[in-house]
Amino acid sequence: MTATPRISRFPVPEIQDLPEDIRARVLAVQEKSGFVPNVFLALAHRPDEFRAFFAYHDALMEKPGNLTKAEREMIVVATSNANQCQYCVVAHGAILRIRAKNPLVADQVAVNYRKADITPRQKAMLDFAMKVSAAAYAVGDDDFDTLRQHGFDDEDAWDIAGIAAFFGLSNRMANVTNMRANAEFYAMGR
Amino acid sequence: MTATPRISRFPVPEIQDLPEDIRARVLAVQEKSGFVPNVFLALAHRPDEFRAFFAYHDALMEKPGNLTKAEREMIVVATSNANQCQYCVVAHGAILRIRAKNPLVADQVAVNYRKADITPRQKAMLDFAMKVSAAAYAVGDDDFDTLRQHGFDDEDAWDIAGIAAFFGLSNRMANVTNMRANAEFYAMGR
Amino acid sequence: MTATPRISRFPVPEIQDLPEDIRARVLAVQEKSGFVPNVFLALAHRPDEFRAFFAYHDALMEKPGNLTKAEREMIVVATSNANQCQYCVVAHGAILRIRAKNPLVADQVAVNYRKADITPRQKAMLDFAMKVSAAAYAVGDDDFDTLRQHGFDDEDAWDIAGIAAFFGLSNRMANVTNMRANAEFYAMGR
Amino acid sequence: MTATPRISRFPVPEIQDLPEDIRARVLAVQEKSGFVPNVFLALAHRPDEFRAFFAYHDALMEKPGNLTKAEREMIVVATSNANQCQYCVVAHGAILRIRAKNPLVADQVAVNYRKADITPRQKAMLDFAMKVSAAAYAVGDDDFDTLRQHGFDDEDAWDIAGIAAFFGLSNRMANVTNMRANAEFYAMGR
Amino acid sequence: MTATPRISRFPVPEIQDLPEDIRARVLAVQEKSGFVPNVFLALAHRPDEFRAFFAYHDALMEKPGNLTKAEREMIVVATSNANQCQYCVVAHGAILRIRAKNPLVADQVAVNYRKADITPRQKAMLDFAMKVSAAAYAVGDDDFDTLRQHGFDDEDAWDIAGIAAFFGLSNRMANVTNMRANAEFYAMGR
Amino acid sequence: MTATPRISRFPVPEIQDLPEDIRARVLAVQEKSGFVPNVFLALAHRPDEFRAFFAYHDALMEKPGNLTKAEREMIVVATSNANQCQYCVVAHGAILRIRAKNPLVADQVAVNYRKADITPRQKAMLDFAMKVSAAAYAVGDDDFDTLRQHGFDDEDAWDIAGIAAFFGLSNRMANVTNMRANAEFYAMGR
Repeated sequence: MTATPRISRFPVPEIQDLPEDIRARVLAVQEKSGFVPNVFLALAHRPDEFRAFFAYHDALMEKPGNLTKAEREMIVVATSNANQCQYCVVAHGAILRIRAKNPLVADQVAVNYRKADITPRQKAMLDFAMKVSAAAYAVGDDDFDTLRQHGFDDEDAWDIAGIAAFFGLSNRMANVTNMRANAEFYAMGR
Repeated sequence: MTATPRISRFPVPEIQDLPEDIRARVLAVQEKSGFVPNVFLALAHRPDEFRAFFAYHDALMEKPGNLTKAEREMIVVATSNANQCQYCVVAHGAILRIRAKNPLVADQVAVNYRKADITPRQKAMLDFAMKVSAAAYAVGDDDFDTLRQHGFDDEDAWDIAGIAAFFGLSNRMANVTNMRANAEFYAMGR
Repeated sequence: MTATPRISRFPVPEIQDLPEDIRARVLAVQEKSGFVPNVFLALAHRPDEFRAFFAYHDALMEKPGNLTKAEREMIVVATSNANQCQYCVVAHGAILRIRAKNPLVADQVAVNYRKADITPRQKAMLDFAMKVSAAAYAVGDDDFDTLRQHGFDDEDAWDIAGIAAFFGLSNRMANVTNMRANAEFYAMGR
Repeated sequence: MTATPRISRFPVPEIQDLPEDIRARVLAVQEKSGFVPNVFLALAHRPDEFRAFFAYHDALMEKPGNLTKAEREMIVVATSNANQCQYCVVAHGAILRIRAKNPLVADQVAVNYRKADITPRQKAMLDFAMKVSAAAYAVGDDDFDTLRQHGFDDEDAWDIAGIAAFFGLSNRMANVTNMRANAEFYAMGR
Repeated sequence: MTATPRISRFPVPEIQDLPEDIRARVLAVQEKSGFVPNVFLALAHRPDEFRAFFAYHDALMEKPGNLTKAEREMIVVATSNANQCQYCVVAHGAILRIRAKNPLVADQVAVNYRKADITPRQKAMLDFAMKVSAAAYAVGDDDFDTLRQHGFDDEDAWDIAGIAAFFGLSNRMANVTNMRANAEFYAMGR
Repeated sequence: MTATPRISRFPVPEIQDLPEDIRARVLAVQEKSGFVPNVFLALAHRPDEFRAFFAYHDALMEKPGNLTKAEREMIVVATSNANQCQYCVVAHGAILRIRAKNPLVADQVAVNYRKADITPRQKAMLDFAMKVSAAAYAVGDDDFDTLRQHGFDDEDAWDIAGIAAFFGLSNRMANVTNMRANAEFYAMGR
């Protein structure tokens, strides 16, 4: 409701003051997206954590594998809504709409993936991701067997678990820092 | 993903076969909105319940009072996401964006109203609504006192509780019937 | 502990001041039962909501179908105790005892229906009702299959879900209004 | 629904086969009550546990102190319903009605003690008992301070905690053994 | 961090002031263990409850049966960590290490028994114990069938349930009294 | 119970096959500790994730700040037991004992930090860490105010939150991979 709402409860550096490698990444994403997603600015308050965060992100989200990019985003969106993380649901909801070329799927998956227009295989993927997010202590052989019945091998299982676990970290930091999603995300891909 | 996805797990009547009063209501909403929201068709499977449902809805959502229409929709959106009801979050999210003339507020309130661009008074309203939805057995004098400190009188408290309770019913029926939100809602008001 | 305990946190109208249709219903129930159940007086504070509430109630509880009237009351009693609603457990417990002609079943079903003297079919009915009440977002085809194995068709499933959902609304309003059960109910049917 | 329902999932000894001390206790309670409460027969399957159980019971329920006998039964009834223990709610509900000379209080306390016709001091007692039952790990100095503000000293706190903890054991054994409450209890004291 | 930390929030009697039978038991355990476990002193504040507590304990933990002594301690350790009871996890963890002659098993079972170096039969035993501890109301025939598939008969099931239920009582009293585990326990059996 | 239990459900590389930078890190920790903690080997299955994981770890655990190294380990131990992560409780329990030069504190903090021999300031730190771990969506200004009353500034709050969030990721991956704690950890620092 303020003219320029804060994007983080913590200090946010100016782009020109960022370490060179971080500034380069921020400018690259700005060039590609047309704006700087606030997560880059909010986390740049801690350069070492920034570098590790995005290295981890890229290792999980950019790696080759059997999960499509849209499927990876589905995992982010479903688990982030369960964790009530505004930034991640809004920003990754936009990315999911674009990657899936589907304007409806992000809201469906966020609210209740069991009722979304996705395949049974994708529902099994999200069942596993939600269990990792909420009750990883109970994950066992049965869960891997179920995934296998849907065509996911063990490496896929690691990918699903890794994405759910990493965004669990991201969700917690976004909620603690009051990280604000850029207005641009809300209408992208609709 | 099918050409014409089902809008309910149960039989859905044709408009021309509806009882006269229900058909009139359906045609009126179609004229106003440009389409028939699926809740009207899905619930028309049971005409008596349909009539009671919408009479209750109107008694709570159309009545005069201190809550604005946008605030009433905030209650629907926040509690419906907690109940994981796709239909209500998507459809009432659209109505909230339009009534609040704000393209961001619905997604913010759905995912985590504590971090939304709303007033402290509206957060207190949603704190109460969420307590009614999740733990009404523990509602007591303290909750009414807190509401009063934010300018809500006892009739407002009834309104908030009534909306949370009624949409709790709606959320459950939508989830049980696999009620599908119309594609039109997703982009409205953005 | 006071001589005349309040039956609601909200104002309660006098019978003679009620709108004609509501007064007629209240007098009819008084004639039939020998007293006016407090829910009629407490909800009469809001005539439009009163009318919708009882229309909904009757549509679910008085309609023909495969569920007996006693079974419908079992659903009310089990879900209302889970929601910790004093009014509904006490009042509908009385009705259940009368309709089932069984002085024990209401307390059994309220506290733990899994250990009650009811049939496996009735336990399956209550399993479904409790899931609708507590986790409707997870209701799926498997639940309908289980019901079918116990002889319930899809219309029965709607009945069970509708009753659980409607009394979820009722439980929340009773808890928010501090609705008080009439002393008459406690010993009825014992 | 059977002519003679089983009172336990486990073997139940005949009274004449009981060890002398246990038979004496069973006959004494039968003389006093007019029937043998099933808990005596069900637990007599394990004589050593029987003796320890009732010694513990008597140490907490028969000891002198600031809690009235009715108040001790309130603790049993409230925590046993939270634990969904049919035997304890039904049997101790009867005892509570008799000790409090109040036909309504047991059902009120069972379903939602926050809305029962009891004193603020008794509500504080039950708040503490329920916390011991559900989250004893979080009990701390603040809870003892709150009790003190209501006139409970530390020994009273031990009594409340002991009763809640002991009946937590009882509730679990009753649920595991399918212990059945005698029909006589349901109408006592009404 | 203090020189002599309190072992209970309540008064702790001196050994010489104890009733004869209790003093004898305390001295016997001191002779056997080389120190007096604090639970004996903390509970001696209430001699009648002390006697019942240890009689119950012995009836469950010393009785013959199919469960080994180490297995009984596994039940204590797993359920006590779920109940966040410091005294019982530390003290019975020590006993488990000694009885199992295994320096690792106690910590494994405490934190997550599903990942511990124990047999499938022992995991089934702990699944049942944890269900009794957290959700005894839902224990039913299926649970007994599962136990039977792992070679446990009904008497074993009672043993498992009894231990879980009894230590649930113990956990609650230890948390309410701030019962402190003796320093000696931490390194025993490692 | 097997001679050489597996340390991960996934393939574990041989040290000589590791990428140079990862092998160097593994050999360095081996030199310092006398053994290779299994987390290094289990995560080395995915070199890019390994690098990001340990860069993140070091950024949070090795950075200067107001939290002592022992306090950082307390956060790991408390949140990891809540998440039922065997590897992290055992391994970081060892590190906590060593850094705090206290053989008791790790087990105390793991089971119930509220009852541990730590300062009120440390309890406030762990209250916040546990809230971040379990309910970060509800973290707000009040939590930062409470931390400030205990001498923690906003950067300390970020540190606490970051550690809780990062080990939440670690806990989930350890549970999914069945990561096994080295036997050496159990007795270290006792």
